[in-house]
Amino acid sequence: MPTFFGFRHHPHAAMVRARTAEPGAARAARLDRWCLDLLSRFLEGVPVELRLWNGATAVVSRPTVASVFIHDRRTLFGLAARPEMSFGEAYRDGRLEVEGDLVALLAAVDRKIDWRRQRPATWLNRLRLGGDRSTAQRNVHHHYDLGNEFYKLWLDEQLLYTCAYFPAPDASLDDAQRAKMDYVCRKAAIRPGDVVFEAGCGWGALALHAARHYGARVCAWNLSSEQVAYARERARAEGLADRVDFVLDDYRHIEGRCDVFLSIGMLEHVGPRHYHELGEVMDRCLDEHHGRGVLHFIGRNKAAPFSAWIRRRVFPGAYAPTLREALEGALEPFAFAVLDVENLRLHYAKTLAHWLERYEASMDTIGQMFDDRFVRTWRLYLAGSQASFATGCLELFQVTFARGACNEVPWTRAHLYA
Amino acid sequence: MPTFFGFRHHPHAAMVRARTAEPGAARAARLDRWCLDLLSRFLEGVPVELRLWNGATAVVSRPTVASVFIHDRRTLFGLAARPEMSFGEAYRDGRLEVEGDLVALLAAVDRKIDWRRQRPATWLNRLRLGGDRSTAQRNVHHHYDLGNEFYKLWLDEQLLYTCAYFPAPDASLDDAQRAKMDYVCRKAAIRPGDVVFEAGCGWGALALHAARHYGARVCAWNLSSEQVAYARERARAEGLADRVDFVLDDYRHIEGRCDVFLSIGMLEHVGPRHYHELGEVMDRCLDEHHGRGVLHFIGRNKAAPFSAWIRRRVFPGAYAPTLREALEGALEPFAFAVLDVENLRLHYAKTLAHWLERYEASMDTIGQMFDDRFVRTWRLYLAGSQASFATGCLELFQVTFARGACNEVPWTRAHLYA
Repeated sequence: MPTFFGFRHHPHAAMVRARTAEPGAARAARLDRWCLDLLSRFLEGVPVELRLWNGATAVVSRPTVASVFIHDRRTLFGLAARPEMSFGEAYRDGRLEVEGDLVALLAAVDRKIDWRRQRPATWLNRLRLGGDRSTAQRNVHHHYDLGNEFYKLWLDEQLLYTCAYFPAPDASLDDAQRAKMDYVCRKAAIRPGDVVFEAGCGWGALALHAARHYGARVCAWNLSSEQVAYARERARAEGLADRVDFVLDDYRHIEGRCDVFLSIGMLEHVGPRHYHELGEVMDRCLDEHHGRGVLHFIGRNKAAPFSAWIRRRVFPGAYAPTLREALEGALEPFAFAVLDVENLRLHYAKTLAHWLERYEASMDTIGQMFDDRFVRTWRLYLAGSQASFATGCLELFQVTFARGACNEVPWTRAHLYA
Repeated sequence: MPTFFGFRHHPHAAMVRARTAEPGAARAARLDRWCLDLLSRFLEGVPVELRLWNGATAVVSRPTVASVFIHDRRTLFGLAARPEMSFGEAYRDGRLEVEGDLVALLAAVDRKIDWRRQRPATWLNRLRLGGDRSTAQRNVHHHYDLGNEFYKLWLDEQLLYTCAYFPAPDASLDDAQRAKMDYVCRKAAIRPGDVVFEAGCGWGALALHAARHYGARVCAWNLSSEQVAYARERARAEGLADRVDFVLDDYRHIEGRCDVFLSIGMLEHVGPRHYHELGEVMDRCLDEHHGRGVLHFIGRNKAAPFSAWIRRRVFPGAYAPTLREALEGALEPFAFAVLDVENLRLHYAKTLAHWLERYEASMDTIGQMFDDRFVRTWRLYLAGSQASFATGCLELFQVTFARGACNEVPWTRAHLYA
């Protein structure tokens, strides 16, 4: 299949020939070539050039968007055997380099997936998702307690680490995050005096926004000590400490009565076995008559686990459910009425493009804060996430729900766009 | 509990006393009273007065919205033993009469249901839902082949027999049905030249609307011979026969390629065991890249069968799924992306209020076309449906979906409200 891959001699080919004079080297070179062939077939149609340490190259499809340089045989064999995990690990270690457009390369690979044939997570895998309070805290600590200074470098000014809402594609990230907060508050129909509970509140921007602009009294829960400390300080500084409480605790311990329950970007860390516990909390707390809420989470069209590499290096215990899985666990058992679902995946692709751009622009500072492995891990995570949302490998669902008999709901959705 | 029911002597009490002189009559009267007591407790809180043939009455809760007159002992016993089915059958037969606000009465009963404790349909019950082509055809014939003249009396001018969309609550039914057709076409982003398939097309209004106003070429399927004959005639009369095809066949036989797949108010008749077949049809027919569609169906917040009476007398084999059930069967297995879900149940309550009002206004004509049982059956069905949508016992879900990788989707939903 010469259209999809073609070996050619590299300027360093003489060196390769010299090496093959060693005993067994000819066999090794044949094996290298076989692996490169295998990898090229695996990547069929992906516009990439593969280059080996020994000068051998394969162009999988032209015109290429990127060139992947594989540093050693161990990395090549790893890629051939277990491509996804090996790619992440080798990129992180610097045993593999990508020149060109990393996002476009990853998107091209994502587009090859036939989701109809995708398998769900195994039961063993599912057991490891979310977890009890101590596991959840460890997982949260792993990702969110990296130092607020780090996140300030590439998030928006209010530190929202969830999908923004861009009223127009060219809106700024700061504007889009503000628009997202308004969108959520309006979808949840927050009115002055409403008691709002928020499960998983990040650095507190939405809780403060709901109090300041919608007159809500807010109580917000979070397991990240660094985030809660930051949020409390911000509430004090902005004179909202009497109307917004930040609690360092697990969502399962939420008690009290509320009119509105929000959870923006937390379900990903809850784990499907625990959706029912979240549903119980909402059922316990929400006003029996007019209680309503918004769940905003990364999802899938078809049930599948996150990549093993993302779970190992970026989000331990995380899982993006299908809409069906989320409803099955957290809403239907409690007869909550789904009022509105919106899929905002292209807004997340754009959010991630902003984050990645700012991440790269802050490279000097980040390089002083963390080692190269960290820098590359986070680059691959941000680029890979952008690619996944751009290609429909990941979705972003915003689900508005209410008590089943609640008729105090807007007549149409037109007010959201007025 | 004297606040909830209180016996008092009726003007005809003397007659009752006369009857109790017969042997065993005193025992029978005690039993009647016990049943009335049981029924009152069952209806606790419902603002209704119950009146028996023998003059005994019980006011369950004041102020009452309706008075139920129970004609005989058999009916009373039936109500005490199996309230839902017996109420429907007795109302149909005229063994039970309701004076006052029938919709308000039924809504008050609906509001008593604790949906969290509701049980799903049994597997045996589920086996009877939807069914193969011949069963489906028999079920469709039962409801939709009653004569187009009947439906013309109380539907809108274009004969849409599904939930309308009222941009404002005081819109006319004709305007609201036109708005619904536009809403669906805009949600599905129909463009000139698009091939649109419609599964379950009623009297053809939407298919003709999509062709006339959106430039689509439409092929629409339906199992009701009367509806198809009417739709074909309308296409000819309006000069759209070259752009709209009406096919008298089952949705499972749909073949060909389309850009857009619509199904408005058919899923209720498909049955959960067959959702996967509908999904297969959509997966087979929809364009691999930009295929998209709208499923519009009556649903539930929690899985439960339709009432046994509705299944016996109005919609044999019908089932209103939860959103989760619909996704599980028809969309997730094929990795379709859910773009948008909207719950329009209050619009259906209003649609039904219009239908019921027009139904009552046409009573003279309908009474000449059908017998009293038919007239009462349809009144109870329309009133009961209005009550169910008004109280959240039934939902109306409009689900917009697309191929998972399709990025040709509107950036926001603002255009739907411009």
